[in-house]
Amino acid sequence: MIKVGIVGGTGYTGVELLRLLAVHPDVQLTAITSRKEDGLPVAAMFPSLRGRVDLAFSSPDKADLKQCDVVFFATPHGVAMAQAPELLAAGVKVIDLAADFRLKDQAEFEKWYKIPHTAPQLLEEAVYGLPELNREDIKQARLIANPGCYPTTIQLGLYPLLKADVIDAGHLIADSKSGVSGAGRKAEIGTLFSESSDNFKAYGVSGHRHTPETSAQLQRYTQQQVGLLFTPHLVPMIRGMHSTLYARLTREIDNAALQALFEEAYKDSAFVDVMPFGSHPETRSTRGSNMLRIALHRPDGGDTVVVLVVQDNLVKGASGQAVQCMNLMFGLPETTGLQQIALLP
Amino acid sequence: MIKVGIVGGTGYTGVELLRLLAVHPDVQLTAITSRKEDGLPVAAMFPSLRGRVDLAFSSPDKADLKQCDVVFFATPHGVAMAQAPELLAAGVKVIDLAADFRLKDQAEFEKWYKIPHTAPQLLEEAVYGLPELNREDIKQARLIANPGCYPTTIQLGLYPLLKADVIDAGHLIADSKSGVSGAGRKAEIGTLFSESSDNFKAYGVSGHRHTPETSAQLQRYTQQQVGLLFTPHLVPMIRGMHSTLYARLTREIDNAALQALFEEAYKDSAFVDVMPFGSHPETRSTRGSNMLRIALHRPDGGDTVVVLVVQDNLVKGASGQAVQCMNLMFGLPETTGLQQIALLP
Amino acid sequence: MIKVGIVGGTGYTGVELLRLLAVHPDVQLTAITSRKEDGLPVAAMFPSLRGRVDLAFSSPDKADLKQCDVVFFATPHGVAMAQAPELLAAGVKVIDLAADFRLKDQAEFEKWYKIPHTAPQLLEEAVYGLPELNREDIKQARLIANPGCYPTTIQLGLYPLLKADVIDAGHLIADSKSGVSGAGRKAEIGTLFSESSDNFKAYGVSGHRHTPETSAQLQRYTQQQVGLLFTPHLVPMIRGMHSTLYARLTREIDNAALQALFEEAYKDSAFVDVMPFGSHPETRSTRGSNMLRIALHRPDGGDTVVVLVVQDNLVKGASGQAVQCMNLMFGLPETTGLQQIALLP
Amino acid sequence: MIKVGIVGGTGYTGVELLRLLAVHPDVQLTAITSRKEDGLPVAAMFPSLRGRVDLAFSSPDKADLKQCDVVFFATPHGVAMAQAPELLAAGVKVIDLAADFRLKDQAEFEKWYKIPHTAPQLLEEAVYGLPELNREDIKQARLIANPGCYPTTIQLGLYPLLKADVIDAGHLIADSKSGVSGAGRKAEIGTLFSESSDNFKAYGVSGHRHTPETSAQLQRYTQQQVGLLFTPHLVPMIRGMHSTLYARLTREIDNAALQALFEEAYKDSAFVDVMPFGSHPETRSTRGSNMLRIALHRPDGGDTVVVLVVQDNLVKGASGQAVQCMNLMFGLPETTGLQQIALLP
Repeated sequence: MIKVGIVGGTGYTGVELLRLLAVHPDVQLTAITSRKEDGLPVAAMFPSLRGRVDLAFSSPDKADLKQCDVVFFATPHGVAMAQAPELLAAGVKVIDLAADFRLKDQAEFEKWYKIPHTAPQLLEEAVYGLPELNREDIKQARLIANPGCYPTTIQLGLYPLLKADVIDAGHLIADSKSGVSGAGRKAEIGTLFSESSDNFKAYGVSGHRHTPETSAQLQRYTQQQVGLLFTPHLVPMIRGMHSTLYARLTREIDNAALQALFEEAYKDSAFVDVMPFGSHPETRSTRGSNMLRIALHRPDGGDTVVVLVVQDNLVKGASGQAVQCMNLMFGLPETTGLQQIALLP
Repeated sequence: MIKVGIVGGTGYTGVELLRLLAVHPDVQLTAITSRKEDGLPVAAMFPSLRGRVDLAFSSPDKADLKQCDVVFFATPHGVAMAQAPELLAAGVKVIDLAADFRLKDQAEFEKWYKIPHTAPQLLEEAVYGLPELNREDIKQARLIANPGCYPTTIQLGLYPLLKADVIDAGHLIADSKSGVSGAGRKAEIGTLFSESSDNFKAYGVSGHRHTPETSAQLQRYTQQQVGLLFTPHLVPMIRGMHSTLYARLTREIDNAALQALFEEAYKDSAFVDVMPFGSHPETRSTRGSNMLRIALHRPDGGDTVVVLVVQDNLVKGASGQAVQCMNLMFGLPETTGLQQIALLP
Repeated sequence: MIKVGIVGGTGYTGVELLRLLAVHPDVQLTAITSRKEDGLPVAAMFPSLRGRVDLAFSSPDKADLKQCDVVFFATPHGVAMAQAPELLAAGVKVIDLAADFRLKDQAEFEKWYKIPHTAPQLLEEAVYGLPELNREDIKQARLIANPGCYPTTIQLGLYPLLKADVIDAGHLIADSKSGVSGAGRKAEIGTLFSESSDNFKAYGVSGHRHTPETSAQLQRYTQQQVGLLFTPHLVPMIRGMHSTLYARLTREIDNAALQALFEEAYKDSAFVDVMPFGSHPETRSTRGSNMLRIALHRPDGGDTVVVLVVQDNLVKGASGQAVQCMNLMFGLPETTGLQQIALLP
Repeated sequence: MIKVGIVGGTGYTGVELLRLLAVHPDVQLTAITSRKEDGLPVAAMFPSLRGRVDLAFSSPDKADLKQCDVVFFATPHGVAMAQAPELLAAGVKVIDLAADFRLKDQAEFEKWYKIPHTAPQLLEEAVYGLPELNREDIKQARLIANPGCYPTTIQLGLYPLLKADVIDAGHLIADSKSGVSGAGRKAEIGTLFSESSDNFKAYGVSGHRHTPETSAQLQRYTQQQVGLLFTPHLVPMIRGMHSTLYARLTREIDNAALQALFEEAYKDSAFVDVMPFGSHPETRSTRGSNMLRIALHRPDGGDTVVVLVVQDNLVKGASGQAVQCMNLMFGLPETTGLQQIALLP
């Protein structure tokens, strides 16, 4: 059994880790920390876990995370970088669901996240935890930077096109839409029910932290200079993410060949479902599951490919992906504990 | 492996059976019928099942349901009664999720459901499939009448009080609220998103089919004449059911004793969670799971007990309960395949 | 033109007052205060008001509220009691949308609201602002205690029955359901979209501040000792309130006579719509309007009357009712500026 | 008073016309037709209109529409073309909210709408009812083709850029999102609450009827050959539409100059609100009102302009715009009866 610790279990990615790990056959939940909720049983905060998770939150000072085999950080940016060095030194693997190790460039990190990076020596070693594109590195990793939710959809939606070098990488557009849980479990007016229900809006259009992360990763798959225009929007639903990706073709390729690029790229990836050409994937087809679904379109037979990508932002976009990485790191089948079928309706 | 057939798999209880049975370790999905969708892969209608359910719908004429060990009817009222006799004769067990066998009294059935009953000879044999109150009978049953969603909450919420004979059974009030999926997957204006979102209303206040079912069952646990006033309401959420039950105490009993009645009644029931006295259970704490949660209140210390009961109407209120019955009928642990944790948020 | 000031315009009752008053033909919006947002144009916080409201928030210290003819307090409990004496002394009328003047009994107020009352000398004078039951007093009032949202539905739903002395006033049940906006525009986790969407729950079942307010008012209409059991619930919709009221008849009366009691009681009340017996009013039929709708039921012809009442909690349940009071206080037709038709769908 | 008839009043654009016209100071509602609901009071179907609209539906055969001054068609495609010739001959003005007269090219119409056009002689005369771009023609018109909801946002969002000839008109992208009411009040599974709530998806990506309408109109403002890629999506909200428009700049122009193009274009348009550069308009800021709001962005200072446009799809996107046209046709101030402030929250 893998002994698992969770730092910061009071947010949505934390409780989602608990939902997944509580039924994972090879995991023993060992510690979950929260300074504020020290002593409170986890199930008192999240009644969905009553009878299923017996742990109580413990103050970070008291929790002996070093006895864990792996520690997940479901924390705001800045926490993992502070604690990872000591844990790694003690032989504990670390998976950070925040952004601390997603950017290789320290200056870039500090520009976008407005905090100094306190463990820059680990940036090079950290492995970007997108298993479909990085599987072998993850197996060897001690420290995982779990991808952002938006970047997961954009990378998996564009990778086969970049790899085959059939699109203009300099003018990519990602028009993305996210459920409200992506904003986290924080007391804020903007994400109140009465503010975000029955409403739709874009946000961060002029610049968003996920753009540099995505661009840097996409750059790995093309010789062209990547140019990405990313527009996030807020959808009045709890979970779910939909990216509508636009890429201009640079050479003639028919639809069957386009489709084949995607099917080939993901033929060994259990969590990526390439749907028939011309499909319209719905976010709810992934609700609560680790699946990501992709469908291709070529409107009016023109020169622009439209790629539709959906996932559950809290599962494949966060905690499910982190567990998928854990499975790889510990030599387990990648799908262990992640076979939940989406809740529909 | 139990060979399972499903008649009528295109509705919400049907797809929910598929979600549960596809990961049930002792089940082999063998046939699923739909006259209208003959030949269509199930996953083409419900993309959430892509890669997880390979079956196609088949016309009822072609499906050899007699080779199954058990057949679930996720159909409108009237279908199970037509097919059950032949299946039972062939040694196939039958679980009906509709109302065909819920009422023992044929005339009562025909009054409320406006169709003649074509298999009245089975009414006596049919076992009411509420495991917490009927466990031993279910184990021996060939034919199960799976309870209605509302009646499940009302019976489990009132049973301990009736059993202990501490309330006035003649003036019970059940003010119940259901998510919209309870209305089924039917093309109707009243349950369109634009009609039922951001809205709340009561319906069927002057009389609802679930009243006679519930009253008849409650009557089993008391010498008093049961009188139940049942008011259903429609909540703008997909899944979830909340019953607020009011019962007047007929003798003095303190809150700890009341609480003990419930804890004792359900101490061996894995799917009934008696929360601490004074709790406010939320429907989402059961979303996608087979749990039902109960909490007791005694406002202002008065003579009325308020019982709050929540469940997922499609799981404990329908398909999960049906699988729970199947487990009992085939000698499996009652919780087999039903250990999903609620999706929160 | 009536010069109007608003204290505390950053909450939902504040912005709703602005929506109504900005198109009121006899009103001149003169001042709106917010200590925190001093100088910010109101329309910068609420873009729905762009081009329609030119005022900026001003600090309470700067705003000269004494030049107003009437000041609305759309503030937390405790603010109006502090400022009302000075305003009244200056000849300014005051309408408080909070609870400061709703209870005549100072001790009762302090028990439920946990703050000392600093203007107890005004409790006797304050007029409870429910026009349908208190019209003449409101016309003469200097100081209005605008009713709570729940109490409005319960009082208007039970008044004709109490008046006619046909029900047991000692065992009244109000099972009420409110949209989330009733919780106000405050940064809190419990009313986040991801917490309250797709969910239903009761709250405050063991005791709620609106119970003493409602009971005290109901007591005015009956010789019996009023006993009210009030259970509030939270519905995943922004606006709307639905009360399901249960009252036991104490003498035989047929349905037509019951209906006549209500039609007679409200025949001169433009904002109370008594629907045909047996109707199911929907909250959305009042969305954005000052209408309150009532329908009567007598399930199974039994001895219990069920009264269904709906309103928009922010209009008839708060700001619309306050404007209705203002109209009466200034000798205007009661419906002036309140003729908006509900937004459906 | 303008005598108004409505053909097809049982859908969402019909009831929205009623909401607006019932309080329009210069309108007398004269007839509303529905073959199916002949004799039913309108307020029995839409309780929001109780006490405000006394009309009953009448069969088209009985209604004497020729005594009206203007008739609105809130019908499926194909109805207006059948009845318009006779009405026009009788001197009645016609406003069609469907697509019958939106395309000048008969073959194009028949290709996209799959029905023969029975009044092609009127195509030339019909005036496209987008007041901000077509005001003078509308004033003179007998027959108005009210624009589609999506096309309204796209045209008003791109017009100033095309007019100024600063963008590549051949590669325009409109990523649009609509509330569910845009699908109409029809009994269909796809728009049930349980299917479309808590979900997001694209639809019609490979080709949608609004593309040719929009392209043809945009072509009027540029010498370039217009190429428009239009991707509609369905948002789980009742009302509201958000278009995210992407246009590549063809010459250097700074942000202030871009902003000035829009402010200048709409300085005389009361219903178009150009927000400050870099704003994020929310659909709810237009809920129930006839306002359309626009904001410009230039992500990372690059060569692509992003235009965000929001409106209420049933008001500015349909019935409000139709009333706006009526006002112009009858010489009234454009804003008459359309001054409702958006419902927020």
